[in-house]
Amino acid sequence: MSRPYIHRLRVRYGECDQQGIVFNAHYFAYFDVVITELWRDELGGYQQMMERGIDVVVGAASAKFLTPARFDDELALELTVTHLGTTSMVTRIRVLRGDELCVEGEMRHVFVDLATLQKTPIPDDIRGALGRYAEGSADRDVA
Amino acid sequence: MSRPYIHRLRVRYGECDQQGIVFNAHYFAYFDVVITELWRDELGGYQQMMERGIDVVVGAASAKFLTPARFDDELALELTVTHLGTTSMVTRIRVLRGDELCVEGEMRHVFVDLATLQKTPIPDDIRGALGRYAEGSADRDVA
Amino acid sequence: MSRPYIHRLRVRYGECDQQGIVFNAHYFAYFDVVITELWRDELGGYQQMMERGIDVVVGAASAKFLTPARFDDELALELTVTHLGTTSMVTRIRVLRGDELCVEGEMRHVFVDLATLQKTPIPDDIRGALGRYAEGSADRDVA
Amino acid sequence: MSRPYIHRLRVRYGECDQQGIVFNAHYFAYFDVVITELWRDELGGYQQMMERGIDVVVGAASAKFLTPARFDDELALELTVTHLGTTSMVTRIRVLRGDELCVEGEMRHVFVDLATLQKTPIPDDIRGALGRYAEGSADRDVA
Repeated sequence: MSRPYIHRLRVRYGECDQQGIVFNAHYFAYFDVVITELWRDELGGYQQMMERGIDVVVGAASAKFLTPARFDDELALELTVTHLGTTSMVTRIRVLRGDELCVEGEMRHVFVDLATLQKTPIPDDIRGALGRYAEGSADRDVA
Repeated sequence: MSRPYIHRLRVRYGECDQQGIVFNAHYFAYFDVVITELWRDELGGYQQMMERGIDVVVGAASAKFLTPARFDDELALELTVTHLGTTSMVTRIRVLRGDELCVEGEMRHVFVDLATLQKTPIPDDIRGALGRYAEGSADRDVA
Repeated sequence: MSRPYIHRLRVRYGECDQQGIVFNAHYFAYFDVVITELWRDELGGYQQMMERGIDVVVGAASAKFLTPARFDDELALELTVTHLGTTSMVTRIRVLRGDELCVEGEMRHVFVDLATLQKTPIPDDIRGALGRYAEGSADRDVA
Repeated sequence: MSRPYIHRLRVRYGECDQQGIVFNAHYFAYFDVVITELWRDELGGYQQMMERGIDVVVGAASAKFLTPARFDDELALELTVTHLGTTSMVTRIRVLRGDELCVEGEMRHVFVDLATLQKTPIPDDIRGALGRYAEGSADRDVA
């Protein structure tokens, strides 16, 4: 069975609005942070991918807000790869405070040639690394 | 036939990332701005609603990113109300640069009692004001 | 006698923190907005300067916070050029809500060659345009 | 001899502008983060202070930008308390990437009664905790 990629972060004061809760737009910035950290841990960092002439652009983003997170909360962001196409990937990101699900989000990224900004196939090594966090993937616990 | 509510804004330097385009999370902040301006123009402002003991919380948000907007672009945000339920509303927001559709987004807001944060029915006057921007609404061109 | 360059903006919901006031860092983003607008009105826009191979970088920034601004407040940002050196300029920016001074800030910008990022003298036309907003400048009311 | 309070953070993608460097306003948000973390480590957290009826407001902030930080840089924020008055404190915050000083900032905070928002003397326990990071303080290496 696969497991999600997990990154933890602390809600900053300036990210909370006058309702005392994280302003919705900031969750999308959090989603970006967890993807950056996945890139660092599995792929030598985002910068290294760009040096190979590849970049990713965001095609779509969505989130359902279930329970508000607040200033100083420590959140766990759990990322699962739910689709790996030829040139695009879809990730699901769950934002948890302890056992409580605060937000459930989804991002679609498209791989592009850094020079032309045209779609480009996901390189094999990146596909392999992302596949480890794919829904239903089993490569982590194979004997 | 109805028409959307339109608000224009200028992309700020600090909202663009190192790709030279608006960072995706900021579009959700833009969506919030257009809703605030709708509230001002049609309902005496967001603050006035809160003084009546009513607030809105964001239940869901999504966006498709079609063409990147850049620093100093003037954008038109066109809001249409696509659903008015008992306690919630759904809006579609199109972000245009001239004739070009940059982003298409959707927000779901829930009306709550400011004291209890429990769902509360949309008051009639607010429902009436929002209905003017409802998809398929005809109240603006009735003879 | 000179007069300041003035730009007005509206405080956004996501810029206010749980104290219900504009989070301090956002004022520095506001300062950047007023400078961008000055560039547009007087110099054909920031982008045009970059196309000439010139950019500006921020060397220093400071602010005193006197009275908090709040969500939906309309603020006037008044910019005065207080120093024009060979390669740098200093501006003072006052943030007003009506007659009330909310914040007083100062920014130091350095002009650089876009290719080398080395300091470069302020071109004459830019110097002339900025000089119109210089403290004590008299060119606007010369007979 | 005293030592500074140190907090490390990673530059986020959305915090960098089209010059590829951290947008200046975000450093002020970083300053706020280091103060929050100091509060957590030494004073049981900012929330706990508010539960005692005390809050702090920012009176002034300034920064000199020496070397730009970039996406994915790990930064060390070193905070020193440079002044502890009756109701206010001044902190100096140095932002370092390795041995390189990127930014040097200063913040002035005023302690206020949460109910009245009037200035209030710094409580003794908070004064004691902050004093450990005071410039020239010797309490950490007393035999």
